[in-house]
Amino acid sequence: MKLSTIAEKTFARIEQGEPDLELKGAAGLDIAGSGEITFLANPKYTPHIKETKASAIFLNEKEVIERADIAVLRSQDPYLAYTRALRLFYPEPEIVGFIHPKALVDETARVSENVEIGAGAVIGRNCIIESGVKIFPNATVYDNVKIGKNTMIHSGVAVRENCEIGAGCIIHNNSVIGSDGFGYAKTEEKGWLKIPQTGNVVIEDDVEIGANTAIDCASVGETRIKRGAKIDNLVQIGHSCTIEEDALICAQTGLAGSSIIGKRVILAGQVGIAGHLRVGDDAVITAKSATSHDVENGKIISGIPAFDNRDWLRSIAAFRRLGELARTIRALEKKLAAIKKTNTS
Amino acid sequence: MKLSTIAEKTFARIEQGEPDLELKGAAGLDIAGSGEITFLANPKYTPHIKETKASAIFLNEKEVIERADIAVLRSQDPYLAYTRALRLFYPEPEIVGFIHPKALVDETARVSENVEIGAGAVIGRNCIIESGVKIFPNATVYDNVKIGKNTMIHSGVAVRENCEIGAGCIIHNNSVIGSDGFGYAKTEEKGWLKIPQTGNVVIEDDVEIGANTAIDCASVGETRIKRGAKIDNLVQIGHSCTIEEDALICAQTGLAGSSIIGKRVILAGQVGIAGHLRVGDDAVITAKSATSHDVENGKIISGIPAFDNRDWLRSIAAFRRLGELARTIRALEKKLAAIKKTNTS
Amino acid sequence: MKLSTIAEKTFARIEQGEPDLELKGAAGLDIAGSGEITFLANPKYTPHIKETKASAIFLNEKEVIERADIAVLRSQDPYLAYTRALRLFYPEPEIVGFIHPKALVDETARVSENVEIGAGAVIGRNCIIESGVKIFPNATVYDNVKIGKNTMIHSGVAVRENCEIGAGCIIHNNSVIGSDGFGYAKTEEKGWLKIPQTGNVVIEDDVEIGANTAIDCASVGETRIKRGAKIDNLVQIGHSCTIEEDALICAQTGLAGSSIIGKRVILAGQVGIAGHLRVGDDAVITAKSATSHDVENGKIISGIPAFDNRDWLRSIAAFRRLGELARTIRALEKKLAAIKKTNTS
Repeated sequence: MKLSTIAEKTFARIEQGEPDLELKGAAGLDIAGSGEITFLANPKYTPHIKETKASAIFLNEKEVIERADIAVLRSQDPYLAYTRALRLFYPEPEIVGFIHPKALVDETARVSENVEIGAGAVIGRNCIIESGVKIFPNATVYDNVKIGKNTMIHSGVAVRENCEIGAGCIIHNNSVIGSDGFGYAKTEEKGWLKIPQTGNVVIEDDVEIGANTAIDCASVGETRIKRGAKIDNLVQIGHSCTIEEDALICAQTGLAGSSIIGKRVILAGQVGIAGHLRVGDDAVITAKSATSHDVENGKIISGIPAFDNRDWLRSIAAFRRLGELARTIRALEKKLAAIKKTNTS
Repeated sequence: MKLSTIAEKTFARIEQGEPDLELKGAAGLDIAGSGEITFLANPKYTPHIKETKASAIFLNEKEVIERADIAVLRSQDPYLAYTRALRLFYPEPEIVGFIHPKALVDETARVSENVEIGAGAVIGRNCIIESGVKIFPNATVYDNVKIGKNTMIHSGVAVRENCEIGAGCIIHNNSVIGSDGFGYAKTEEKGWLKIPQTGNVVIEDDVEIGANTAIDCASVGETRIKRGAKIDNLVQIGHSCTIEEDALICAQTGLAGSSIIGKRVILAGQVGIAGHLRVGDDAVITAKSATSHDVENGKIISGIPAFDNRDWLRSIAAFRRLGELARTIRALEKKLAAIKKTNTS
Repeated sequence: MKLSTIAEKTFARIEQGEPDLELKGAAGLDIAGSGEITFLANPKYTPHIKETKASAIFLNEKEVIERADIAVLRSQDPYLAYTRALRLFYPEPEIVGFIHPKALVDETARVSENVEIGAGAVIGRNCIIESGVKIFPNATVYDNVKIGKNTMIHSGVAVRENCEIGAGCIIHNNSVIGSDGFGYAKTEEKGWLKIPQTGNVVIEDDVEIGANTAIDCASVGETRIKRGAKIDNLVQIGHSCTIEEDALICAQTGLAGSSIIGKRVILAGQVGIAGHLRVGDDAVITAKSATSHDVENGKIISGIPAFDNRDWLRSIAAFRRLGELARTIRALEKKLAAIKKTNTS
């Protein structure tokens, strides 16, 4: 691919280098080789520019470069431009409309023409599978499920009854969409009576869900993952939660039921969210933190339970020498008692 | 369904409304519509009674209601009564005795008459599958497994060799029953030698297990999940653990090996339990806590490591301003030093 | 099996008992019965020797035994010797070269002679499956995958495109090898643009991976699990991580991207490791801890964020009475103010 094409498709400007320069791939600063394009996003790595073997580089408008033997593309956001370049080099493979004879598609399912369904995949009654969908081997789609255009369902995924998945989604292997919520009423004998989980999960367009993630259906109503949200591996989404647009939920995070995660919220790895609360738009909860209260828009919080991140940083610094602090307090008490004694004697 | 039928089956008493009133569903206070029955369990929501569109409501004996246009059922436990009503409206679907031609049932397996086995499901050698069992597509049952009456095994579940599952259980998608315990002996060269995991998992009656949960078999002997225990999604149960009757284990909780979780214990989300310990009956461990010690019956504990919940609440309140406390201590030291100087000068 | 054979194969010395004594199994001190061999590793259990029903026991060189009715095998490491004995009694079952007619092996795949592939398993294009491999039912192997000699792939596992698995590995049920890394660039509209994940996962020889674990591929390059590493259930390994030889990663631990876990490191249960860091050889991170910094070789660390384990033990001891400490500080302030007043009045 020509440098000029890459520049055009990544909205970058050629500052240095031949527009006809042929590039064959994209990679990070340290591993890119000849014929590849790279990027610099973090000024920490500026010294690495000298040694990179890449043939071209995305730089922001301010970054100074002293090498003449590398093509330079200027971009407001070099990381985003690099991502766009990588996507040019690795386009999604074309779908081959093909239902494998070892797949099982129920005769009542409505499957569009250009759909790929692998061996061992099972499509239940009354499902609607739109064009461009790719369902990998051994995925299981229960009854009355709708899957939107160009969505990919990887092997081992279960999409439970009545769930809806939008267009352009990717569901990675062995994730479960629409398992029963965890709801029981306590009986007179202190046992647990299952509350029927009769709702569903609705996943809007452009959502990606990692591997081995579980999203429970609502008892009544729906669990909803809105457009553009991204969910990592091994995440637990409880019944009746709502994940708003472009929220990012990292691996092993868990949400109890009925909570709302606002737009563009970032939940880092292994975060815990209690039930019936709202995390406001653009809030960030740092890794391994947990909250049982609402979180204001834009707040960054940390800890178990989580509070303002700057306060938390001070608290954990003190926590490291808490043993010593406790000894100091005891020593202060003794000294004070001695002074009092002196004063009153 | 008639109001009188619902009252009878939920052990409630009609206080207001026609016994012949026809109801068609059950839902929460805010989303219930005309023709539906709802409930009030938490007095926090009492004001919502005025606005509900439900046609009937379960109330406890004390709750005062001023509307005459809604049928009122009195119950000692409105939530339990509501759950029973919901179960009336959503009965388990009948099993259709049917083995799909794309399933594989080993010829040595003994499968009762009224069993449903979906496409792609595999039943190993010498398995015993009792009547009323439903095995969804692409589930895999290894050799020598016994599955009791009316149990449901969802797609993607693996039941490993020699495990036993009781009657009336539900195993949600992609959970694994009987994977090898994580056990190794250190070799002379500081490598790890696998300890054979030759035991099994026994799941008693009326147990529900969520999606993507892993329950390891014992090295020798058994891992046992007792009657009525409920286990959520993405839970880890280590080898040789025992989960006693009616224990409730929430999502992403993990147990190392050989621990015992007592009757009716509640382990909230993301809890960690070390190995070889006992959590006493009716104890509660709050979310994201961990213990490496035994827990007394009935205790509520929190924190990492966990201790008495009330003490923990005080500790975390102080932790929020621990940075400030540390500064105060330093200031106290200085003041005290100054006073001593004054006193001794 | 004769006592003499067991002694020979476990590198132990018969101190007491007939070399021809026939043994039929191995089990722990409390559950071993007649005809079985047991072991004592932890001196805490020494008193149990009196009551064991085992017919033989592994003991270290120093342990004194007063019973004459039990065969005694002396070993430098009784636990290791016991593990070797258990392995003698439970050898891996022989592979029966057999491809089930309900499996799907792509015609371009190269499958060695002595390979077992179960019903519903799918092997993609251009895969190489070496001899002695056992692939259980409903496992899915994507295109261009290589699986080394004698490796076992359990049901429901997904091995994604281009991944490599070495010899003698075990991958337990429903784990995912090579799912996409969680990488996005933020767009001008504050949405997320997927970064193509074009790399793979390489698993070296003698690695064991638990159930429901997810190992992401690299965006560019590889994620590598080195020889002898052991990974438990429900673990998350982010893109481009390296797990070095003989590292041990316990259940529900999660690694963000590009981190390196050193040789023989132990990450206990539910640990969190941030991205782009190195945990040095032989380090130990205790359960439920997390680090966002490099860890020195051989260090034992604890806490969130983690620091030296001994300091942490002191800190958590003080944390339990932090509420009280805060009250003490306030009381000290008052007393000091009173003294100052007295002094200055």
